[in-house]
Amino acid sequence: MEKHKVAIVGYGNIGKYAIKAVEASPDFEVGGLVRTSASTKLHETKHLNIPVVENIQELSDIKAALICLPTRLVPPSAKEILALGINTVDSYDIHGQLAAYRKEADAVAKEHGSVSIISAGWDPGTDSMVRCMFEFMAPQGITYTNFGPGMSMGHSVAARAIPGVKDALSMTMPQGAGIHKRIVYIEMEDGHTLEEITARLKADAYFAHDDTTVIAVDNIDNLIDMGHGVLMLRKGVSSSAQNQIMSLNMSINNPALTAQIMLASARAGLKQKPGAYTMIEVPIIDYLPGDRDEIIRKLV
Amino acid sequence: MEKHKVAIVGYGNIGKYAIKAVEASPDFEVGGLVRTSASTKLHETKHLNIPVVENIQELSDIKAALICLPTRLVPPSAKEILALGINTVDSYDIHGQLAAYRKEADAVAKEHGSVSIISAGWDPGTDSMVRCMFEFMAPQGITYTNFGPGMSMGHSVAARAIPGVKDALSMTMPQGAGIHKRIVYIEMEDGHTLEEITARLKADAYFAHDDTTVIAVDNIDNLIDMGHGVLMLRKGVSSSAQNQIMSLNMSINNPALTAQIMLASARAGLKQKPGAYTMIEVPIIDYLPGDRDEIIRKLV
Repeated sequence: MEKHKVAIVGYGNIGKYAIKAVEASPDFEVGGLVRTSASTKLHETKHLNIPVVENIQELSDIKAALICLPTRLVPPSAKEILALGINTVDSYDIHGQLAAYRKEADAVAKEHGSVSIISAGWDPGTDSMVRCMFEFMAPQGITYTNFGPGMSMGHSVAARAIPGVKDALSMTMPQGAGIHKRIVYIEMEDGHTLEEITARLKADAYFAHDDTTVIAVDNIDNLIDMGHGVLMLRKGVSSSAQNQIMSLNMSINNPALTAQIMLASARAGLKQKPGAYTMIEVPIIDYLPGDRDEIIRKLV
Repeated sequence: MEKHKVAIVGYGNIGKYAIKAVEASPDFEVGGLVRTSASTKLHETKHLNIPVVENIQELSDIKAALICLPTRLVPPSAKEILALGINTVDSYDIHGQLAAYRKEADAVAKEHGSVSIISAGWDPGTDSMVRCMFEFMAPQGITYTNFGPGMSMGHSVAARAIPGVKDALSMTMPQGAGIHKRIVYIEMEDGHTLEEITARLKADAYFAHDDTTVIAVDNIDNLIDMGHGVLMLRKGVSSSAQNQIMSLNMSINNPALTAQIMLASARAGLKQKPGAYTMIEVPIIDYLPGDRDEIIRKLV
């Protein structure tokens, strides 16, 4: 099988798993890693034996870039790369803003003949695909998406920004019926009290609307587990039949699954016309490698 | 919302639920019911207040036909209707033959400018969609599809054809790891023994390869429940992360879900180029009614 070169942009949890996902795939190879200040951090990536650059234009023949940056940095990076005529994939995860981001990326992609698959993680992403399927399978009813227990990256970052917090880990705990509780573990800086930090954290926009418990610990690193999960449950009506029950349940390594889905989306991107797409806008078969007739024979 | 006219072809379990699914939908209405010998069976359908005809050409403005016939009658019916330039949807369920059927339907559809969505039930159908998703989410691993407990229509029909059997119901019982047992309940004709019928049934190609138990009962009708279910389980590897566990679980009214999925596929068919498609070849968003931007905002 011909191997397409992809660039990995960012070397956090997702970026690290993305490199391994590409290496394990039959149809892609790593064209290089893009990092800000690549030269000063070269010791971290020397063992990878891949080109490490500060600008994607230093790499050649790149068919797609997997943007593995913190979510707020994703849209500017994607638009810049799309404008070079290179496809992008990201796991931008702000549900309320992804529709607007898609429109912006769509305009850039169409102008420059590139393809972007946005919000291509597990939620938004593959969960969204199943959520839409459940909706057309039982058009009347309610879907509950229950996350966790698992680390929320966004909430952990927000907690770390609270004055007096040295390090933090925010866990999402499912309470059923799509309701969640947050447990925030914190390592405190000297001279602060738990009461004072708890008050500040509960006033933060990230936590103000959730039932939040704050617990002080000595060492956050000892608590880190990148496992996560989801139970998406729909009870609804198909035709005139009530009580149709359908659920998706996962227990997964979060950044590893995200990276794998992003790579599948890079594959699908190669088969789309220029523009920006969410995962529900692309035929499922396009995410899979190999011969289409064989996929239909084997998996339908 | 503009309402598209669909024809329902066949008035068995699926056909009955298809009529109700269309009536409950925002974007379709029943254009008519197509039955062989419609005139002699008119008393069965008089209460529906819809046109009942023997040939789809007697109806006008039909945008799609939902073919709700026994599976072996589906391909000839679909090809005939596609040749009239009318879209079709079916739930053809012979896994080993659907790829070949798709090719034949594709040629007819392309010649006559129509669209066919084939094998659009829950398995093959929506299960196939999720099976493909699990495959790209964890490319190494094993997927187990466990059906039931539930009635197998095909096996019940096969059991009824055995000499000495007056009526039969074949239940599919999941044994885990994708292995199934069959329990066949039979009403016997006078002058036959259970031993004799069991021997004949176990020699039949439908049952020869499965662990099958035959039980004689007085009245099959008292056992009929159209509920069914599936537990599709994949354990696999995403990137370098082992033990990624994902499952789809459903407990559903079988013909009602099938009819609802067929209607969603009729909607999707209106948005495709001429040709024949399995469900994995069509973007998920196309199965849903309403504005695309709103679907993305609400469900992604």
